[in-house]
Amino acid sequence: MNPETLSPQHFRWAFDAGVGVVTLDRPALKNPLTFESYAELRDLFRALVYAPTVKCVVVTGAGGNFCSGGDVREIIGPLTAMAMPELLAFTRMTGDLVKAMRGCPQPIVAALDGVCVGAGAIMAMASDLRLATPRTKTAFLFTRVGLAGCDMGACAILPRIVGQGRAAELLYTGRVMTAEEGERWGFHNRLVEPDALLEEGQALARSLAAGPTFAHGITKTQLNVEWNVSLETAIEMEAQAQAICMGTQDFRRAYEAFVAKRQPAFEGN
Amino acid sequence: MNPETLSPQHFRWAFDAGVGVVTLDRPALKNPLTFESYAELRDLFRALVYAPTVKCVVVTGAGGNFCSGGDVREIIGPLTAMAMPELLAFTRMTGDLVKAMRGCPQPIVAALDGVCVGAGAIMAMASDLRLATPRTKTAFLFTRVGLAGCDMGACAILPRIVGQGRAAELLYTGRVMTAEEGERWGFHNRLVEPDALLEEGQALARSLAAGPTFAHGITKTQLNVEWNVSLETAIEMEAQAQAICMGTQDFRRAYEAFVAKRQPAFEGN
Amino acid sequence: MNPETLSPQHFRWAFDAGVGVVTLDRPALKNPLTFESYAELRDLFRALVYAPTVKCVVVTGAGGNFCSGGDVREIIGPLTAMAMPELLAFTRMTGDLVKAMRGCPQPIVAALDGVCVGAGAIMAMASDLRLATPRTKTAFLFTRVGLAGCDMGACAILPRIVGQGRAAELLYTGRVMTAEEGERWGFHNRLVEPDALLEEGQALARSLAAGPTFAHGITKTQLNVEWNVSLETAIEMEAQAQAICMGTQDFRRAYEAFVAKRQPAFEGN
Repeated sequence: MNPETLSPQHFRWAFDAGVGVVTLDRPALKNPLTFESYAELRDLFRALVYAPTVKCVVVTGAGGNFCSGGDVREIIGPLTAMAMPELLAFTRMTGDLVKAMRGCPQPIVAALDGVCVGAGAIMAMASDLRLATPRTKTAFLFTRVGLAGCDMGACAILPRIVGQGRAAELLYTGRVMTAEEGERWGFHNRLVEPDALLEEGQALARSLAAGPTFAHGITKTQLNVEWNVSLETAIEMEAQAQAICMGTQDFRRAYEAFVAKRQPAFEGN
Repeated sequence: MNPETLSPQHFRWAFDAGVGVVTLDRPALKNPLTFESYAELRDLFRALVYAPTVKCVVVTGAGGNFCSGGDVREIIGPLTAMAMPELLAFTRMTGDLVKAMRGCPQPIVAALDGVCVGAGAIMAMASDLRLATPRTKTAFLFTRVGLAGCDMGACAILPRIVGQGRAAELLYTGRVMTAEEGERWGFHNRLVEPDALLEEGQALARSLAAGPTFAHGITKTQLNVEWNVSLETAIEMEAQAQAICMGTQDFRRAYEAFVAKRQPAFEGN
Repeated sequence: MNPETLSPQHFRWAFDAGVGVVTLDRPALKNPLTFESYAELRDLFRALVYAPTVKCVVVTGAGGNFCSGGDVREIIGPLTAMAMPELLAFTRMTGDLVKAMRGCPQPIVAALDGVCVGAGAIMAMASDLRLATPRTKTAFLFTRVGLAGCDMGACAILPRIVGQGRAAELLYTGRVMTAEEGERWGFHNRLVEPDALLEEGQALARSLAAGPTFAHGITKTQLNVEWNVSLETAIEMEAQAQAICMGTQDFRRAYEAFVAKRQPAFEGN
């Protein structure tokens, strides 16, 4: 995968200075997902594992909304006609998107405006950091279409972000979490004005891309894999993981910069 | 178990339109629990697994308080005279109440006013959603009676609702969590005025009962079982669980209602 | 280990009325840690397992700061010259400090003023309760020295205190968490003015030391070991753990005091 030349069919991609920007771009419909865009997004995040020049990724939407989720006519309609093996193939594919987002080493910054619902809320949840605007409306509205809240990992991931009680409310009722609630509950890291959103998301991504990106990838891995291990195991895992990072040149660069009283220039190795 | 005719001995039960209401009802003593009421509550929630016409449950207390916990003279006194096998039988019975509350497929809405302490705080914690009033005082006061904070799952469940640091404070000190703190920390989903509490709790329960209740039961199951599994396992579990829900008629009903531009009428199958 | 006569070389120790106070005390450098102080702290917390007269511990710093973390010249410089086995020995030793803090039965109250960064932030995180002042600045700044956020258990512990999204931001960016954020996010239990900090921390510790301290130790154990077990397992673990506590004299003392309408005098057995 060459981030300079990548030209996906079902979303926009831009790449500059180590930062890739994924823009969901069907603004007339508030950027719904389709079978094809799910699969292409999954493939993108899988390919990022082998794209060392991409240091950080921003996901956002065009036209003042992030994502309206799975398109009702293009996805939900066909699903109602499928047999169980096809249904499971679909839910596994959508789950694979979350796995791929968590599995790539690049931190993912979601820049979320307007509608952020269904699979869109899940993509926000699966990101590492979330910026939103005062008008961002996030809803895990699976219950509204007759489904359970357990979509693409939501019953495991959302409680760890906002707590078990708030997650239960959002998943049982499908109600909107306002932007203010999202910030207060720890879902959104920060609220910014809509016209500053993309730039703020990119600035955050650039600052991460300028950091020790090999170490960021290890941070991401450990945030993923330490969920369900014991305290003792987590501490041993981190002893090993951090020892690896102490063997990197970036660690030495930081020390030498400190001694020389200048800013370090990290290279991700 | 027939919810229309159920007449428990140690609490009140009402049933209407798919919603069962459990009312702890010894208001002169602020609704303490006894050996008998623990057991009868446990049996109720166990029986709800086989009560498909009950779609949602509200737990509340009579007389402006939720529950003062295990009665000091009726429970704590006898416990001080018991040998270890009897003590373990008791703590297992109380734990079985929490298991039964988490194990029934119906979401449980706690409507909490006034005193909500000890085993009462645990019953609140074991519910899915919590409404409280500005005067609700919640305390995990086991330490005050010489015990540990690890009662009926509190060291596992409370940290996931309010965070590890706040849970530690509540469990080590036994101090009151005010209603305002409870809302701010994610324990209470919402505060309402005392005279609106039961009606708001019932309205929330009715709205859940009008939803895709089979799917709600799956949401509850997944909120329970994904606590201690890996991210990968959680996502696979949800792919399977959601595929099951996509095979339901409620999923089809939602889609058909959307196409016909009307509200879906879910039937829980 | 005799808490009356203990005289550590790399930090101060005071002991009174069941409460031990650890004071990091190199105020000119904002109390950094060195290889020697890490090891001596680890050994102290390990020894506390066998120090039954110590009922609670306060950790704090001298001169208006808590701790500036691993000293850059005394720790980071040497680390850049080490081979992998030595690096792993170091990261395991620092992890052992966290294990020892979590492993001793005494609740640990951190009293945090000013700078609380790097390994200092970790020691705060590894404590049970945290008091801070309006000027406390907490930063998990490992990324600033070219390392990953997974230091001494941070990727496992911090998300459970402040939530996954906020922890991710703190660990990826290394930015300061202000005191106000720390309180709002559940990291700090309470903010107090700097000149009241130590006294408030000691008062909280004394109140815990006056409680059922055997039971507190069980609370701490269960808060540690129930992280990654199933709901069913947690409830069975607590049934056993609480039954043990019901066999203590402190449980009986509390009951007898209640009946006699006086305050119980707990003895920790």
